[in-house]
Amino acid sequence: MATAHFYRLLIERTPATVDQEHLPVAIWADPTTPDRTEALLGIGPSPVPALLHGLRWLQAAGADCVAIPCNTAHAFRDELVRRSGAEILDMVAAALRHARASHPQVTRIGLLATRGTRGALLYERAAEPLGLEIVHVPSDLQHHVDSAIAAVKRGADLGPAARDTAVAAACLRGRGAGLAIAGCTEIPFVAGEAARILPMIDSMVGLADDAIRRLAQAAS
Amino acid sequence: MATAHFYRLLIERTPATVDQEHLPVAIWADPTTPDRTEALLGIGPSPVPALLHGLRWLQAAGADCVAIPCNTAHAFRDELVRRSGAEILDMVAAALRHARASHPQVTRIGLLATRGTRGALLYERAAEPLGLEIVHVPSDLQHHVDSAIAAVKRGADLGPAARDTAVAAACLRGRGAGLAIAGCTEIPFVAGEAARILPMIDSMVGLADDAIRRLAQAAS
Repeated sequence: MATAHFYRLLIERTPATVDQEHLPVAIWADPTTPDRTEALLGIGPSPVPALLHGLRWLQAAGADCVAIPCNTAHAFRDELVRRSGAEILDMVAAALRHARASHPQVTRIGLLATRGTRGALLYERAAEPLGLEIVHVPSDLQHHVDSAIAAVKRGADLGPAARDTAVAAACLRGRGAGLAIAGCTEIPFVAGEAARILPMIDSMVGLADDAIRRLAQAAS
Repeated sequence: MATAHFYRLLIERTPATVDQEHLPVAIWADPTTPDRTEALLGIGPSPVPALLHGLRWLQAAGADCVAIPCNTAHAFRDELVRRSGAEILDMVAAALRHARASHPQVTRIGLLATRGTRGALLYERAAEPLGLEIVHVPSDLQHHVDSAIAAVKRGADLGPAARDTAVAAACLRGRGAGLAIAGCTEIPFVAGEAARILPMIDSMVGLADDAIRRLAQAAS
């Protein structure tokens, strides 16, 4: 669902008036790729071989750049770039830039993300040079975020997932966050209720805009 | 947008509880492919070379079957199958089967489609052996359908497009159609108003179900 949503964002955010002005896109979507969080927690196999396989196929297709609409996979981004030579856009940096551009007064940023993304400190590392601080849901309430993500992945009734996300957003607001980044690409599907508590930034929007800018460069 | 919507349908209609149970999908989306209707009307280049290029790439990815979420492109399906050897699902047949299964009492089927699809008699040929009759919008009102499709392609304000589609659906109802097939993959995005006039069948739903069935066979 994240890939389909990202593809739609890419289309909606591309200035185009007929089919022929849209971007040529190749998508490799292999849902059998091992779970990124389980790999980071040391309880599952690495997703790197499956991701490299997809990258090689996209490179053969002539991709100018690659977007991976999964925040947790960005823990493996340096390794993927080194081993494939592909240009892989940085979704975490893009999300933080998008948050800063849309809410320049906010320096304390809440994050809704997987345990893998949290543990790998992906957002902390990218936020520090920008002078931004990352705030998390307390560990003992992280299960609300995990449940919401799992519900989207299995296509369950999304009502409880939306309430879980709202609870998590309320936590972040209580901790002084001025906005929340949906830092897992399943979250935007269940963020409606949460967005009434705290402004929500979709990490995929920044990534889509980065891709469109990058491809405009390639074309010019 | 049609491809993104088709991809989403494929995901939503696949029974899955975690990422790893979803279908691996490769997408080749080249919006620079020449316009299918212009080619069929003899006023533009053939889309066949561009479609063959994409097909070869999908075959290299190991695709078991190929779905083309564009009705008009099906005028070239026999040639594409012959020249590529790929298994290409038949969206027109799938849409008619889906219409018959969901509305078994209806034999007079309205069609909202491009001039290319109409002129190539794609739906008529597939409907005849099923004992179904195809009804069109009168030629002098086809511009309502054309406008609606063009508006989606350019991402315009969709209000007028939805009204155009409703006018076309009303025509079909006046001609005795018991339902309308959105036989151009842009139509479902502007069919809300029309669906209050006549039941609307999305041609992509039948295609998605065909693909899911076909891949379940490949897996078993």
